[in-house]
Amino acid sequence: MRIIGIDPGLRCLGWGVIEADGPRLRHVANGQILSGAGDLAARLLALHVQLTEIVARHAPDMAAVEQTFVNRDGAGTLKLGQARGIAMLVPAQAGLPVAEYAPNAVKKTVVGVGHAEKQQVDHMVRMQLPGCAPAGPDAADALAIAICHAFHAQTAGRLAQAIGAAR
Amino acid sequence: MRIIGIDPGLRCLGWGVIEADGPRLRHVANGQILSGAGDLAARLLALHVQLTEIVARHAPDMAAVEQTFVNRDGAGTLKLGQARGIAMLVPAQAGLPVAEYAPNAVKKTVVGVGHAEKQQVDHMVRMQLPGCAPAGPDAADALAIAICHAFHAQTAGRLAQAIGAAR
Repeated sequence: MRIIGIDPGLRCLGWGVIEADGPRLRHVANGQILSGAGDLAARLLALHVQLTEIVARHAPDMAAVEQTFVNRDGAGTLKLGQARGIAMLVPAQAGLPVAEYAPNAVKKTVVGVGHAEKQQVDHMVRMQLPGCAPAGPDAADALAIAICHAFHAQTAGRLAQAIGAAR
Repeated sequence: MRIIGIDPGLRCLGWGVIEADGPRLRHVANGQILSGAGDLAARLLALHVQLTEIVARHAPDMAAVEQTFVNRDGAGTLKLGQARGIAMLVPAQAGLPVAEYAPNAVKKTVVGVGHAEKQQVDHMVRMQLPGCAPAGPDAADALAIAICHAFHAQTAGRLAQAIGAAR
C-alpha cells in the first residue's frame, strides 16, 4: 500500500510517499513544492501542476492531508485553505481516497505526544523510515502524515479482520 | 471582452458570464454549482469538474473572483478558502488572467454603496444586464463581480489611452 502524505501551504507544500507492507514502512520519496512568485492564481496553478506530476510519478494508492486551520488570522486561514483545496483536489482527480488528520493526531501517532516540536517530528520520521532524509520541515510533516495514515489504516484493517473472525 | 465572475463557496459556487463591449454590457449565462454530498475531496473535485466545463463552454477572456474571508470563524474561513482555491485554479488552468475584488468594492461599483443587501445586488444586476434572471443570490453576486471587473478594466483602459494621448 503506497501512501502520499501532504502538508499544505501556499508558499511551500510538503509531500512524502511511503510504502506500507503491514507494520513495515519504507520511504519512497519526499520533497517540498514552492509556489514561486506571481499572483495567487499563478501560485495555485504552480502547486497544482507540480503536485499532479508527483502523484503521477509515484502512483500512490491513497492520500492523507493535514487538517490545519489558523484561528487567529482570517487572511492566513484563507491562504492556507486555498492551498489545501489544491492539496485535496489533486489526489481526488487521480481517483485516490483522501483521508484527513488533525496535526495533533499526526504528532500523537508519530511522536507519542500531541504537542511535539518540528525537530522531534523530523527525528521520529527518520527513525521510522530508515535512510530517509526529509527535504525540510514541511516534507518531514508530510511523511509524518503518511505514517499516521499507514498506522490508522492498518489498525482499521486489523479491526475489520477481528470483527470478521468473531462472526 | 467576455468575463466570468465567480462567487466561491464550498456548498454552492455562483458563476456569471457577461460580454463587455466598451460601456455596453450583455448577459451571457449564469448559474450555481453545488458540490453535493461526499467527503471534502469529492466535493472539491465536483466543483472543479463543473467549473472547468462552464469555462470551456463559455470561453471567457478573463476571470474575476470575490475576495472574501470570514474572520470570526477559522473553520468557516478554511472551507471557503478551499473552494476559493478551486475557483482561482480553474480559470488559471484555462490561461485566463484572474482578478480579485473585495465584496465591498463589488457592491460599491454595482450598487453604489459598500454595504448593500443581497436584494439590491440582484436588482442592480437585472438593471445592468437586461433580460438576465440570476439563478440565485450566489449567481447574482457572481454577475456583480463580472460587472465590477468590466467597469474597472474599462476605466484602466481609458486611463492608459489618456496617458498614451498625453505623451
